[in-house]
Amino acid sequence: MISFDEAIHLVYIAVGNINYPEKFEGLYSPIRYILELKGKKIRPVLCILSYNMWKEDFEEVMPSAIAWEIFHNFTLMHDDLMDKADKRRGEDSVHKRWNENTAILSGDAMLILAYQHIASCPEVYLKELMDLFSSTAAEICEGQQLDLEFESRLEVCQEEYMEMIRLKTAVLLGASLKTGAIIGGASKQDAQLISEFGVNIGLAFQIMDDLLDVYGDPKLFGKNKGGDIVANKKTFFLLKALEMADSKTKECLKQWLKNTNQEHKEDKINAITAIYDDIGIKKMAEDKIKSLYLQARNSLAKISVEEDKKYVLSTFAEQLMNRKI
Amino acid sequence: MISFDEAIHLVYIAVGNINYPEKFEGLYSPIRYILELKGKKIRPVLCILSYNMWKEDFEEVMPSAIAWEIFHNFTLMHDDLMDKADKRRGEDSVHKRWNENTAILSGDAMLILAYQHIASCPEVYLKELMDLFSSTAAEICEGQQLDLEFESRLEVCQEEYMEMIRLKTAVLLGASLKTGAIIGGASKQDAQLISEFGVNIGLAFQIMDDLLDVYGDPKLFGKNKGGDIVANKKTFFLLKALEMADSKTKECLKQWLKNTNQEHKEDKINAITAIYDDIGIKKMAEDKIKSLYLQARNSLAKISVEEDKKYVLSTFAEQLMNRKI
Repeated sequence: MISFDEAIHLVYIAVGNINYPEKFEGLYSPIRYILELKGKKIRPVLCILSYNMWKEDFEEVMPSAIAWEIFHNFTLMHDDLMDKADKRRGEDSVHKRWNENTAILSGDAMLILAYQHIASCPEVYLKELMDLFSSTAAEICEGQQLDLEFESRLEVCQEEYMEMIRLKTAVLLGASLKTGAIIGGASKQDAQLISEFGVNIGLAFQIMDDLLDVYGDPKLFGKNKGGDIVANKKTFFLLKALEMADSKTKECLKQWLKNTNQEHKEDKINAITAIYDDIGIKKMAEDKIKSLYLQARNSLAKISVEEDKKYVLSTFAEQLMNRKI
Repeated sequence: MISFDEAIHLVYIAVGNINYPEKFEGLYSPIRYILELKGKKIRPVLCILSYNMWKEDFEEVMPSAIAWEIFHNFTLMHDDLMDKADKRRGEDSVHKRWNENTAILSGDAMLILAYQHIASCPEVYLKELMDLFSSTAAEICEGQQLDLEFESRLEVCQEEYMEMIRLKTAVLLGASLKTGAIIGGASKQDAQLISEFGVNIGLAFQIMDDLLDVYGDPKLFGKNKGGDIVANKKTFFLLKALEMADSKTKECLKQWLKNTNQEHKEDKINAITAIYDDIGIKKMAEDKIKSLYLQARNSLAKISVEEDKKYVLSTFAEQLMNRKI
């Protein structure tokens, strides 16, 4: 079996070998730029690891694995523009380094490039993968749409939030894994199970992200503590707090949400964290993460390959839960 | 044989029947909006007419025909945003009616929707059509990239201009026609010939557009006369004039290009038109259009189906040359 690090290595080589038409430097260099920013390349790695549960000859799966990485970075390029996020993995994002039109047009070319990669799969799987790719891509747009709508909505319930992160984040992990299984020749049932494994891991990962924003060690987490709180981001924590708080606490919370004065930043983080502590949201989040992780493990367990072939993915899931990865 | 108007009718029905997920109104209603703006739907119509040279059962070709219409409107949605063009077919463009993020995200969803339509073709043609679709889509991005670069470049030569309009406009007509031929079961050679027919018609159409901007009857043409001149747009006329003018005339032309004072608009149009008249660019453009039209007719003539099956497309080309369409 291939290890996680060996899979990353394969992905780095393949990304470095992508062929861009030399003639249109202005269109393609932003694509190379974002793809070659350091990053964990989790989606293609998952695709390769999943494939490896059934087959060993990686050449067949590489273009499709890379397709998901290209697609993911296409969404980052356009999302950064929509969210006016000027940094991406510590570097300038594309609309900042070049300009907005470049981020739009190179992003479009990138989505097309992703489709060209997925269409380089073995032809017998082409229709199935095309349908999976497009339906997943559409869901991710729907997730981003919900996320944008949530910003300006007053009330968002917990279920809507779970649906948003499912669409925006989780289905992509499920689809990357499913792609590997399909090209590996897995049964329909196994392909479905590995997809469910990925979706639940993705949901758990996102809630963990919300948790680390409040309680993580900034040095290890790599983001500023309380960033979501300062930005009034509708996270698992905020939505759960708005749902569970008594009327007095809820009023206090809403007052803090109205306070966007940057000078009160630290006070806001401390006050809202204290509310989360009082209600005990951390425990609720941890319970939710655990439950999703168990569901994921359960799906993996049901897949009809020998247990040792599941080792890398099950270790991956475990490490993700402990955020060593 | 189906007539041009019958084909348009089929397209209108199919566009009206596109299925959008109800749940994500904010994402999909801008797509419905732009697709249902009045328009000639030339690309899917050409696809249907081409198909009809070989086959009669239109059901098989409709999703792919519509794919090109969706794709074309996706490029309009993003191009209008990049070009800050607030009007589209007399109505507000999407970024104006909604906002910029909507134009970006609904545009992305639209490109995915186009791929879903092309992937609904008969499976035996899927790989070929996917490759055609993606390579054409990439070329169109490359054309838009050149167009954006031309705006800020001082010198653009005639060949570069022809390459830009080939990529941005002409290949799309070629690919729409080729799609119909492929699904109709045409030979590789015939599919190539109908594509060349489309590309040359597309080039001729674009130069005609440049000509009508200077010499057209605004009432018939539907745009303000001299719009390209006022905007300093690098058209066939301007580039040819910069190439052909003697040094004194060239200096005069460059002075007018520097003058962007809206109050001198009419003077600028008159002066630059006079320069075009002096050099005789209109004749050169007409010769170029005629030569492209003859090449297109020549390709059509070589296609190995009975002459009466070519009637609708050859009439279409002829009417386009006389701009009755």
